[in-house]
Amino acid sequence: MKYTKDFIWKKGLSVKELVNNYEGIGFQSYELFKGSELIKKMKKNSAKIYLSFTSNMVTTGLRGFFAQVVKYKMCDVICTTTGAIEEDIMKSFGEKFILGSFASDDNELYERGENRVGNVLIKNESYERFESKMQDMLSDIYETKKKLSVNQLLKEIGLRIKDENSFLYQAAINNIPVFCPAITDGSLGFDLYLFKQDHKDFEIDIIKDFSDIIFTTTHDEKKAIIALGGGVSKHHVILTTLINGGADYALYMTTASATSGSLSGATTQEAKSWGKIKDDADAVTVYGDVTITFPLAMIKALEELVEEKIITI
Amino acid sequence: MKYTKDFIWKKGLSVKELVNNYEGIGFQSYELFKGSELIKKMKKNSAKIYLSFTSNMVTTGLRGFFAQVVKYKMCDVICTTTGAIEEDIMKSFGEKFILGSFASDDNELYERGENRVGNVLIKNESYERFESKMQDMLSDIYETKKKLSVNQLLKEIGLRIKDENSFLYQAAINNIPVFCPAITDGSLGFDLYLFKQDHKDFEIDIIKDFSDIIFTTTHDEKKAIIALGGGVSKHHVILTTLINGGADYALYMTTASATSGSLSGATTQEAKSWGKIKDDADAVTVYGDVTITFPLAMIKALEELVEEKIITI
Amino acid sequence: MKYTKDFIWKKGLSVKELVNNYEGIGFQSYELFKGSELIKKMKKNSAKIYLSFTSNMVTTGLRGFFAQVVKYKMCDVICTTTGAIEEDIMKSFGEKFILGSFASDDNELYERGENRVGNVLIKNESYERFESKMQDMLSDIYETKKKLSVNQLLKEIGLRIKDENSFLYQAAINNIPVFCPAITDGSLGFDLYLFKQDHKDFEIDIIKDFSDIIFTTTHDEKKAIIALGGGVSKHHVILTTLINGGADYALYMTTASATSGSLSGATTQEAKSWGKIKDDADAVTVYGDVTITFPLAMIKALEELVEEKIITI
Amino acid sequence: MKYTKDFIWKKGLSVKELVNNYEGIGFQSYELFKGSELIKKMKKNSAKIYLSFTSNMVTTGLRGFFAQVVKYKMCDVICTTTGAIEEDIMKSFGEKFILGSFASDDNELYERGENRVGNVLIKNESYERFESKMQDMLSDIYETKKKLSVNQLLKEIGLRIKDENSFLYQAAINNIPVFCPAITDGSLGFDLYLFKQDHKDFEIDIIKDFSDIIFTTTHDEKKAIIALGGGVSKHHVILTTLINGGADYALYMTTASATSGSLSGATTQEAKSWGKIKDDADAVTVYGDVTITFPLAMIKALEELVEEKIITI
Repeated sequence: MKYTKDFIWKKGLSVKELVNNYEGIGFQSYELFKGSELIKKMKKNSAKIYLSFTSNMVTTGLRGFFAQVVKYKMCDVICTTTGAIEEDIMKSFGEKFILGSFASDDNELYERGENRVGNVLIKNESYERFESKMQDMLSDIYETKKKLSVNQLLKEIGLRIKDENSFLYQAAINNIPVFCPAITDGSLGFDLYLFKQDHKDFEIDIIKDFSDIIFTTTHDEKKAIIALGGGVSKHHVILTTLINGGADYALYMTTASATSGSLSGATTQEAKSWGKIKDDADAVTVYGDVTITFPLAMIKALEELVEEKIITI
Repeated sequence: MKYTKDFIWKKGLSVKELVNNYEGIGFQSYELFKGSELIKKMKKNSAKIYLSFTSNMVTTGLRGFFAQVVKYKMCDVICTTTGAIEEDIMKSFGEKFILGSFASDDNELYERGENRVGNVLIKNESYERFESKMQDMLSDIYETKKKLSVNQLLKEIGLRIKDENSFLYQAAINNIPVFCPAITDGSLGFDLYLFKQDHKDFEIDIIKDFSDIIFTTTHDEKKAIIALGGGVSKHHVILTTLINGGADYALYMTTASATSGSLSGATTQEAKSWGKIKDDADAVTVYGDVTITFPLAMIKALEELVEEKIITI
Repeated sequence: MKYTKDFIWKKGLSVKELVNNYEGIGFQSYELFKGSELIKKMKKNSAKIYLSFTSNMVTTGLRGFFAQVVKYKMCDVICTTTGAIEEDIMKSFGEKFILGSFASDDNELYERGENRVGNVLIKNESYERFESKMQDMLSDIYETKKKLSVNQLLKEIGLRIKDENSFLYQAAINNIPVFCPAITDGSLGFDLYLFKQDHKDFEIDIIKDFSDIIFTTTHDEKKAIIALGGGVSKHHVILTTLINGGADYALYMTTASATSGSLSGATTQEAKSWGKIKDDADAVTVYGDVTITFPLAMIKALEELVEEKIITI
Repeated sequence: MKYTKDFIWKKGLSVKELVNNYEGIGFQSYELFKGSELIKKMKKNSAKIYLSFTSNMVTTGLRGFFAQVVKYKMCDVICTTTGAIEEDIMKSFGEKFILGSFASDDNELYERGENRVGNVLIKNESYERFESKMQDMLSDIYETKKKLSVNQLLKEIGLRIKDENSFLYQAAINNIPVFCPAITDGSLGFDLYLFKQDHKDFEIDIIKDFSDIIFTTTHDEKKAIIALGGGVSKHHVILTTLINGGADYALYMTTASATSGSLSGATTQEAKSWGKIKDDADAVTVYGDVTITFPLAMIKALEELVEEKIITI
């Protein structure tokens, strides 16, 4: 039996020590501690790890951390939404995103050509430059392949990025497939449409893409989910593991509530009714902003996996 | 200037009267009143109305109401996620969904073969029967067309349903296109994959689908969004209106919070920084479970639009 | 076993019919239906009903509805916070509260002397007139009693209000005690302090007040809780019923989440670990803004209790 | 202008470094960074700091950290609810609180005599031993004083605790007053009632208590609020600073949403309409579980204030 323990700060406290203290605090800090332990367990038991995240997380500085997580092979398959692809590429080209305020005057921002995502602002001109670069990149890819599944397209893009802090680049060079089940849902959709006007035989094969993701694993393999936020990227990795017999481990980090019956808010508890997760220790939901909760849980796991020589940095 | 007004119930109070009372109550009831007025304004000003909803809403009894909303042409374009397609079809075939509890014993549900979505349960066998029916339906569609965009596929399916309470059927016979930007993200994805094994020349064209949605409107036309819940279905209609100069009216109904920077939680306020909405009266966000908020707002609008002979029932 | 049922609107739909349709919809609408049924059960089984609400609800037009709920004896004991007392009194004196916006320019409001509570605004001058009236009222009460428990003070105030739409007035004339465990936490606290400067023997006895609330019921009596929102008013009625053996029925309506371990977000499920609620049907939590959820649930209950001649209007 | 910056983990990363990285991440991590800077500003500008927290936070291991925060004089006045008082005392007597699960079987817990607060469990016997100890302590205090304001009572209790990790003890020996505006709202209320049965002249003076808190500061003094969670403890410190001309700095940390108009969810933005906060940099709201957000923000502030020799440890 575990008991709460008075937390006492000591000067120079490391992130690893803080998260280990969460074991005695309670509420979401305790769930976060369990989530961090679960990440270690996924890795130690050689589970195939499916990492999903929503595009807004790549809008933030987490983008570099995702690249690092990929580089250290803390995930085997990635699933996300189109905005994440776009903004990863934009940042690779040097576009800068401004830190603003949740309580902005949005009419004023519009006049200035700044688009708000929470407290982060993206300039119109960043999108304009992105569109022009994408046409070049698509032309280049078209030279080699005319019909691609989504993950093939994203690998080709990744290989052309060459930015250490890009998750697409790191995924590409580390052979980690990136899936994006609604690839046209963004500026990129418009780019694909424009490109196709002059290249009628250019095609994106989504049925092949679905077949690619379901064959990333098997019934026999241990499978793990780290779902950051909700939406189709979360659902797609749950679906993939379900088709293959269910996930053995699942860590959900979200701000969405379970009360509206949405998939985004669905708990790992609910996931048990669908799949095969049996043990509470192997299914953890942490409520809170992912920009805070994910680095905390992942950093403690990374530090300890490095100490135990399970990963090398 | 408007003031709060003591709400007093009278026996036999109608939904229309209740929602009109919200004008003097405050907090979310006041926002809901404004949302209902906004729906009327969209219709009176002949705006092209984009309705998006997440799949879990179709899991509930709202499915019949969506069909009714389509039938009375309260929307011109629909955007949703795959689960909504699947469950609309399943219900057309007579599958029954059980009302359960948010606090179920999920391991027990798993043993019973019941999958939980909040407090609604779907049996495994419903999915099994669905898969078999889908193969028949896809074969039938394949006879006429081998390559379809997503909305074309959904129209073909809708035409084959013949259930008054199906939104796909009502959309099909009323020429309202249904978009689903991540069509493979569900059991349907697996069905498409299976079907393709024996029909190699069967293809889903998502670039065409994107072109179809952006040409549903023009810069000149007035455009309105009713986004129920978040995710790609919400984003896709925002994107479509944005490409065409921005929406004139936007009503968001959600339980997602703006604090995490997610698109699901993004307010109509934030939308102003991206688009052209200028006036507060034309952009309303209502927080609360859509199973409660949407019928309230839509019913008052329907009642008054019928009275004003703008729609006929 | 219950199943979801397609909801179909009919012209002139009443609130009662809508809420009865919720039985077949799902998610929070289904919980609301169960909550409404539970209110009827509380009344039919002659339970002592404890109604708690937070002050912000009285800021809105719900204030008149609370008065009506009291008048029809749908509760036996009330517990709230100080702002509710103040604003009920202010409205009795004719103060008007403005309907504004959640996205106001708050610095501008400050310049105008308007204080924001969500999307409702209260003028500084309303508070000023309130303070002056309170000194008169306290003087008048002091003539008859110099030491009062909080509920005695609130009864004396209630008797002096004479406004049909005041819950304090209705409670006073219907012998329904009103408790307010943190009575000094508001403008009223300052009024009591000012009054005491010139009336040193004026005293508020909170230990007597606590004894008064715990003797409002007994172990043998059936007890019910309707807790709207959280905080001390919710906790105080739970505590009172717990000391007397636990509540038999509990309906919580809230927007607070259970994930942070707060009492405000604590579910009726959690309440079972503390008390004696055994049956799921007797403990319902409805998530959503109380300005929407409470009237819906209470109106259906009122309509049906009137039909069944259990209450008379 | 600030821009997002890719966050890159380095082995051995300290909490201070992590929180400083939040400056370039975005969403709530960026707000947390600003909150941490604001704590430093409060201290450097010698503001009188009002710290409020809800009782559930003391149920967790944060209790020891609160004691430490008091010891290092990072606050000047404390305001909380009764459960916090009770559980601080219980832990001083050696009672242990169990770490459980949010998804417990609550009927089973009830049978075992374990009361759930989120994922923390308190045994019935802990409450029983607490009641017996409280009678002894009240007898001892009664020997010296028969009439006390709440903060005087809590100081007398604090002096009798002698546990380094008790916030009541640290507050008492460091002359930091502790306010609790609804002191009877808990097991302690029952203890006071029992004690009074045999000590009729024992009295708690809440009007004096209110006068004590409003005289903790002046119009001229700089005033700061750190409000963890909502409810009366948050409202009471806002009220106190408002009566004295408004707070200069305010940091709110909460999971409550602004959408329901509750005080618990009220933002620092809303606070501007009531008071005198002018500058955005001086009013920060951080959304998330306080067991995670508060230590992060406070630790970075403590580390840097120690480095700058503004506080000594």
